[in-house]
Amino acid sequence: MDPQAAREAVLLRDLGEWELLRRLAAFAPPGQFDDDAALLQEESGRQLVVNTDVLVEGLHFSDATMEPGDVGWRAAAANLSDLAAMGCRSVVGLTVGLVAPALTPWSWVEGVYQGLDQALQRFGGILLGGDCSGGGQRLLAITAMGHLGSGAIRRCDGRPGDLLVSTGPHGLSRLGLALSLGELDGAGLSAALRERAIRAHQRPQPRLDAVAALEQSRPAGRLWRVGGTDSSHGLVAAAAGIARASHCQALLDRSALPLDAELAELAQGEAWCLAGGEDFELVLALEPAWAEALLASLPGTSRIGVLAANSATQSAAPVAWLQGDAPFPASSGFTHFR
Amino acid sequence: MDPQAAREAVLLRDLGEWELLRRLAAFAPPGQFDDDAALLQEESGRQLVVNTDVLVEGLHFSDATMEPGDVGWRAAAANLSDLAAMGCRSVVGLTVGLVAPALTPWSWVEGVYQGLDQALQRFGGILLGGDCSGGGQRLLAITAMGHLGSGAIRRCDGRPGDLLVSTGPHGLSRLGLALSLGELDGAGLSAALRERAIRAHQRPQPRLDAVAALEQSRPAGRLWRVGGTDSSHGLVAAAAGIARASHCQALLDRSALPLDAELAELAQGEAWCLAGGEDFELVLALEPAWAEALLASLPGTSRIGVLAANSATQSAAPVAWLQGDAPFPASSGFTHFR
Repeated sequence: MDPQAAREAVLLRDLGEWELLRRLAAFAPPGQFDDDAALLQEESGRQLVVNTDVLVEGLHFSDATMEPGDVGWRAAAANLSDLAAMGCRSVVGLTVGLVAPALTPWSWVEGVYQGLDQALQRFGGILLGGDCSGGGQRLLAITAMGHLGSGAIRRCDGRPGDLLVSTGPHGLSRLGLALSLGELDGAGLSAALRERAIRAHQRPQPRLDAVAALEQSRPAGRLWRVGGTDSSHGLVAAAAGIARASHCQALLDRSALPLDAELAELAQGEAWCLAGGEDFELVLALEPAWAEALLASLPGTSRIGVLAANSATQSAAPVAWLQGDAPFPASSGFTHFR
Repeated sequence: MDPQAAREAVLLRDLGEWELLRRLAAFAPPGQFDDDAALLQEESGRQLVVNTDVLVEGLHFSDATMEPGDVGWRAAAANLSDLAAMGCRSVVGLTVGLVAPALTPWSWVEGVYQGLDQALQRFGGILLGGDCSGGGQRLLAITAMGHLGSGAIRRCDGRPGDLLVSTGPHGLSRLGLALSLGELDGAGLSAALRERAIRAHQRPQPRLDAVAALEQSRPAGRLWRVGGTDSSHGLVAAAAGIARASHCQALLDRSALPLDAELAELAQGEAWCLAGGEDFELVLALEPAWAEALLASLPGTSRIGVLAANSATQSAAPVAWLQGDAPFPASSGFTHFR
């Protein structure tokens, strides 16, 4: 096979999302694709945080599980979560590329924009502009912009000895999806948990507030150094992302997973906590004093593990259990190209 | 029919692109959607220009008429043209949302990004970031950012008595499309015209250079006031956009259309010049002294008409011929929701 034909034989399905992003990163300056969002330095030194997310019907949202208003809210929230994961504290606004078939009812579009607007009212910023086009499938391509707070949160800024902190529970969004789809009847669950789970799935909250708490809990005199990312692709994926970029190993404390007690009793509980995805919390790697101060000041935050030095050969798995040799469940490969 | 059902009965196809954008603009601050791009003021006073465009396979590009590299170039160029139309002189970069079916060859994606990269090398800026997802159809959602030069170019800043100026010829891109599709055999056309037309279609040039020329030709002491937009949706659409927003009437000089002499001899020549679209030139409304200075300094620029006061009732057609009562061809309604 000549090289041209060999390249043509490689399909996106074969690459998966991560390898595709790695290849696309080669078209950008080194390091540009390493974090959740891009930084642009303004003349005054202030930094603008920019992020683009695409949400496609059938993959990221569906009429079966969401009202149009939820679709709009979720699209904005997913994007703002990437801004928060970069250290953004205030939102400037977003642009929206809308694609929808010609036979789409206006009422659906109106509902989506009402949801977007509600998210902007709640988290700040305005609708800056956008574009719309026909197409075979409904989708939203959103670019969000905001301003960095005290400093950037980077995947590569973890260090051995850091505590791993999660700003909230995991697995709820996946439970909400299961309940919405009727995958799980939920009869054994409390009404309160069912309601929280549906809400976590339909109206996720980007943790811009956690960035503010992080800044306020910084021990006096400490330089800014915060490893982190958001857990949109799952808790393990977040921990692995920090571990790999920081050349460490993330050791998760199996006895302290950020998992609702009632959810923990479900057979799927632990798996959904680890890899359910779309919880949109921040997962942070912080020196212990800073971590303890954050844990004390931000309700819902919990210590989930530590970063350890990786072996000299960097060959250890990026994520393992803190407790002994129990095999770590294979990380669910997150891909949108199935 | 109750109001809810009535709203549901309205489909995007019935609205068309302009009415849809008008309705979406209600979710943004007043005036936010009036121009080609959004402006964000930085702390130093410098303004960031932001624009989002969506390009969908089958509507905006096709394998039949373009190589992957052309798709990437064109996607970047269309976006940068909107920046130029706002008065942007320097490009910061762009984010790319890529959607493609799982069976898309990597070589296609690689070609698209090579084209994007070539456009960035040519016009400045870097690939800032992006997202990718599977989906039923190939598409690109691009957000471009740049910095404003001396001032903003606004559709609403035309005044009666302004000259209308085009920075280049129109209809070439449409001719190039016709040649690519075999709609026209082109045997009667010179090789030079055929080549220019194909190039205009496949590798359009955003006129950031024209913004620089506009700044340099400003008569000493004049305040910044430039009406304008780009002609991505056609020359008449551009003139009509300025006329409506400026509460004027655009009178086009039929004897001075920005139309290649050879193209003018084709039966479709005038129609393609007026409404072919995707020429990505700037159409500007300038006070006569400034217009003359620009015409003298920027080769290819031509005077195409004037802005006149509209009747007291604002009821005149937004665009008409400068010459007498010849009926103006009905503007081709540009819609991506057919």
